[in-house]
Amino acid sequence: MPEASPAEGDARVPADGGSAHKLWQPYLDAALGFRNHWYPAFFGSRLAEGECRGQEMLGERILFKRIDGKVYAIEDRCAHRGVQLSQRPECHSKNTISCWYHGFTYDLRNGRLVAIVTDPESPLIGTIGVKSYAVEERKGLVFAFIGDETPHALALDLQPGFLDEDLAIYPNGDHEIIKSNWRLAAENGVDASHIYIHRNSGLVNAGRKSLPLASFFLTREGMVIDHDGAPKGVMKGAGRKTSVWETEIEGVKVKSQYRPGGDATHSHITNTSLWLPCGLKVEPFPLDDTAQFEWYTPRDAHSHHYIVTWGRKVKSAAETDLFVREMDAVWKNMVVDNFNNEDVIAREAMERFYAEEDGWNREYLYRPDIVITEWRKLASKHNRGIQKLPRPRA
Amino acid sequence: MPEASPAEGDARVPADGGSAHKLWQPYLDAALGFRNHWYPAFFGSRLAEGECRGQEMLGERILFKRIDGKVYAIEDRCAHRGVQLSQRPECHSKNTISCWYHGFTYDLRNGRLVAIVTDPESPLIGTIGVKSYAVEERKGLVFAFIGDETPHALALDLQPGFLDEDLAIYPNGDHEIIKSNWRLAAENGVDASHIYIHRNSGLVNAGRKSLPLASFFLTREGMVIDHDGAPKGVMKGAGRKTSVWETEIEGVKVKSQYRPGGDATHSHITNTSLWLPCGLKVEPFPLDDTAQFEWYTPRDAHSHHYIVTWGRKVKSAAETDLFVREMDAVWKNMVVDNFNNEDVIAREAMERFYAEEDGWNREYLYRPDIVITEWRKLASKHNRGIQKLPRPRA
Amino acid sequence: MPEASPAEGDARVPADGGSAHKLWQPYLDAALGFRNHWYPAFFGSRLAEGECRGQEMLGERILFKRIDGKVYAIEDRCAHRGVQLSQRPECHSKNTISCWYHGFTYDLRNGRLVAIVTDPESPLIGTIGVKSYAVEERKGLVFAFIGDETPHALALDLQPGFLDEDLAIYPNGDHEIIKSNWRLAAENGVDASHIYIHRNSGLVNAGRKSLPLASFFLTREGMVIDHDGAPKGVMKGAGRKTSVWETEIEGVKVKSQYRPGGDATHSHITNTSLWLPCGLKVEPFPLDDTAQFEWYTPRDAHSHHYIVTWGRKVKSAAETDLFVREMDAVWKNMVVDNFNNEDVIAREAMERFYAEEDGWNREYLYRPDIVITEWRKLASKHNRGIQKLPRPRA
Repeated sequence: MPEASPAEGDARVPADGGSAHKLWQPYLDAALGFRNHWYPAFFGSRLAEGECRGQEMLGERILFKRIDGKVYAIEDRCAHRGVQLSQRPECHSKNTISCWYHGFTYDLRNGRLVAIVTDPESPLIGTIGVKSYAVEERKGLVFAFIGDETPHALALDLQPGFLDEDLAIYPNGDHEIIKSNWRLAAENGVDASHIYIHRNSGLVNAGRKSLPLASFFLTREGMVIDHDGAPKGVMKGAGRKTSVWETEIEGVKVKSQYRPGGDATHSHITNTSLWLPCGLKVEPFPLDDTAQFEWYTPRDAHSHHYIVTWGRKVKSAAETDLFVREMDAVWKNMVVDNFNNEDVIAREAMERFYAEEDGWNREYLYRPDIVITEWRKLASKHNRGIQKLPRPRA
Repeated sequence: MPEASPAEGDARVPADGGSAHKLWQPYLDAALGFRNHWYPAFFGSRLAEGECRGQEMLGERILFKRIDGKVYAIEDRCAHRGVQLSQRPECHSKNTISCWYHGFTYDLRNGRLVAIVTDPESPLIGTIGVKSYAVEERKGLVFAFIGDETPHALALDLQPGFLDEDLAIYPNGDHEIIKSNWRLAAENGVDASHIYIHRNSGLVNAGRKSLPLASFFLTREGMVIDHDGAPKGVMKGAGRKTSVWETEIEGVKVKSQYRPGGDATHSHITNTSLWLPCGLKVEPFPLDDTAQFEWYTPRDAHSHHYIVTWGRKVKSAAETDLFVREMDAVWKNMVVDNFNNEDVIAREAMERFYAEEDGWNREYLYRPDIVITEWRKLASKHNRGIQKLPRPRA
Repeated sequence: MPEASPAEGDARVPADGGSAHKLWQPYLDAALGFRNHWYPAFFGSRLAEGECRGQEMLGERILFKRIDGKVYAIEDRCAHRGVQLSQRPECHSKNTISCWYHGFTYDLRNGRLVAIVTDPESPLIGTIGVKSYAVEERKGLVFAFIGDETPHALALDLQPGFLDEDLAIYPNGDHEIIKSNWRLAAENGVDASHIYIHRNSGLVNAGRKSLPLASFFLTREGMVIDHDGAPKGVMKGAGRKTSVWETEIEGVKVKSQYRPGGDATHSHITNTSLWLPCGLKVEPFPLDDTAQFEWYTPRDAHSHHYIVTWGRKVKSAAETDLFVREMDAVWKNMVVDNFNNEDVIAREAMERFYAEEDGWNREYLYRPDIVITEWRKLASKHNRGIQKLPRPRA
């Protein structure tokens, strides 16, 4: 019997066979994410006119400022001596930020060095600058494009439908920093069988929702969405679904709490899909007319931004108001505190194995993980570049 | 005059001459301990029927569960995605533990994957598993065998006499995690001259015990116990003993507090011995009819489990009761708080030098350390394998 | 337009042109400072007769003891097992310290092992020792010479004038441990344009002092002081000074708070100079008849001792008394809390860039930094040796 012995170090063959991790080497290299993609940064409501906000994304330090309503982003590290501009934000004029240390002044619109307070005649002015980032604010979320290429269309890097005009997006979603690599979060999100950790969730109990122990597909049919000029993603599949409602262990039955046709008052059938670079869509959830959107924006190699919000198709401003009021009053906290928190525990619990114990080579995937291996291959294929940071002098 | 200059980096010749650390290279490599030995894990009284306990030993994460009175141990890391089973222990049946994340279910008796809650028909069931560990519970202590070989006899890896039928062992000993490598603890334990740090101990004062400043042997005679089919260890020696009661420094006399024939009301003559893999015996201590047993089970490269208890020869259940009551009432805390704590300070004080400053090559051993160098050679000779952990991808 | 992109990693050409950091490679290697120099350790008033004090300097652990008024220093790490002598200082006689662990006893005057409490007949006695350090106590400060050479004259490693007989030095200066490499502190100190961070300082406001936004020299004239047999240093220059009182950013004027001929009641014209190995002199400051002296003694690669005091020319003991009373009553805390604290923030803010993000190769210096690049070249030229520590076994 093979054992997952810590002393061996062999590479495991994943459930779907093949040459294992050779198939997704770019993914394994992407501890900091993929370049040349749009990533959500934060909810726009958290940045008022004229304010600055510093945030680390994909290992880069980024400064955001809202000017005449529009958000701009540049490197949050002065070209001169590397201090963080956002540590003591100093804006002498509308379109600029000046470094608090020597007054190197950058135009937020392009990163260009437009003045130096302490050397107004400096020949450097106009010739250098810091990195600038394309920014789009849509549906209440601020997105930044991190890479070298001309920004692609935002819609290509988002869950399909997110930008639909009649989809109202809740503007006060949750944003937390979670201590795990972003890939562990993404894989947990789309993982077809991890719903097992939710079987006693407050949310499931409150709604007497039927929730199987697991529900997955054994074939790749309909699992990979890979069309030119459209978002790339994976979803649970379209073949024959296997739903597990009951297992027996040493004669003891393990059952899901509420079953259709049994105690359940609600059936809980959702479709979950994961999209490049790091966005999840769960539909419907937590209500029949509502979808949950999540993102796992890489922060550094060992943490990610966990950004969660919800969307609902609406026909009027009144319906939008109702939607926001419902989320404010009940559902935001209900979901975050009684459901998503379990996912957070799982992501953080994987971190040691993958970061310190060679987990990528030692994991032992099983049949339901086919959606995860398809995701790894898809992400590797469309990666657009691996994010790397310069290393210091040895 | 040679100096122990931090800028030099030369290897020191130990007190007993020879080619120094080349003689004990396996020992230098064993930061995580030696494989294929029995190590004490914890006091059995701390694990009730049906309960689980996770603990790191020799860098491996191990899960213990008591089933029908007997303790079993398997790897505390799910084969699937590497999370710790003991983080949220979930036992659906008596002989198993299920991973809280996807329900991979292991038989505690052999580590075998016997069910997967979320995929009951998985072809993996019965074909893989996690590492399992042989366990023995003797004299109130739970021992685990960590390695690949068929477990050796427990008695070979214990201080001689510990398993004697008429030796009562105190079941509520002390178990702490100490922040030093296990070898620094073992060497401090057998170190013949370190009693100097105890000369003002509360225990010594309370008993007006005679305690020399140091007491050691200059020859290897009787120092090494290395017989086939028996525990391997070192003890202080059988040659001519040198006891130091007084030294002079610049005309100032440094004396031991209580001397035989002087103020001392008790003579304190003990024999101390150190046994593979990491057990100490001090006899008698702290009472004339009592022996102290200690172990320094490696935890990770920079910490160890410090497990301490006591034994006494008894002739009846009443004598055992008396022994336990005495230890409970006075001696356990007296020794731990007024004597062993000084050893803990010394072990932790060495850690920086050995972990960060090349101490193994820069130390300057002296004559009384002959027992330490004999220990290093003995441990190297009988090491049965060096514990190594897999390294993550660079 | 070139950008300081985190993804590039190119070496920047400094303001003064040339082959950039190749010119100051020894300086780049000196994360722990330069050997064979005198460094200030602490204020003598903080070490009473017979007392011991352990302190890390240039990555070496050093023990100081005052004996008959004179301060001696030896390695604060026992040659035997590497524990820190100062952790539990144990002095059985006037000129010695004994290790608390086994009683290895060192003469503070030369580091020699003069006794071993636990083995009085040891053949090691008199044959080995720990490193000893030359110490001088002048003007209330204790200095240690760290290196292998015969100590040079202290005056060569000090700010000129510091030892002048008629210069009273305040004995109760400030001594803090700051979390940045020492070089970032030194460069901040002499940086001609960093006064920008002080423009709103409490000290400037309290005195309505005129303080330009920056003040620097564009030529090397008079900038480098490099004469045989004298301290080596840099000062702001003697050419045409550029003083910046006002800048315009997008039509918005940025002005210094108080200008000569305007609101200022005091003119603030100081000369700042930086001297090998790590001493700054600011004159006059904070009063017209007072000079500020600072040192940035390396502690480890990521922290330094920040030692600050003041000096004033006096003609009598009464004048000295007055000076000390003034500093005690007002100026010490005023300067430390309302001015120096801003420098501390800047030094710590640079640490991440230089320690983790390849800052030494990625910085983008500008014209006023010519004094910094001259400093780097001067320090490289006269470095007397790069401090390195032995690395542990891999």
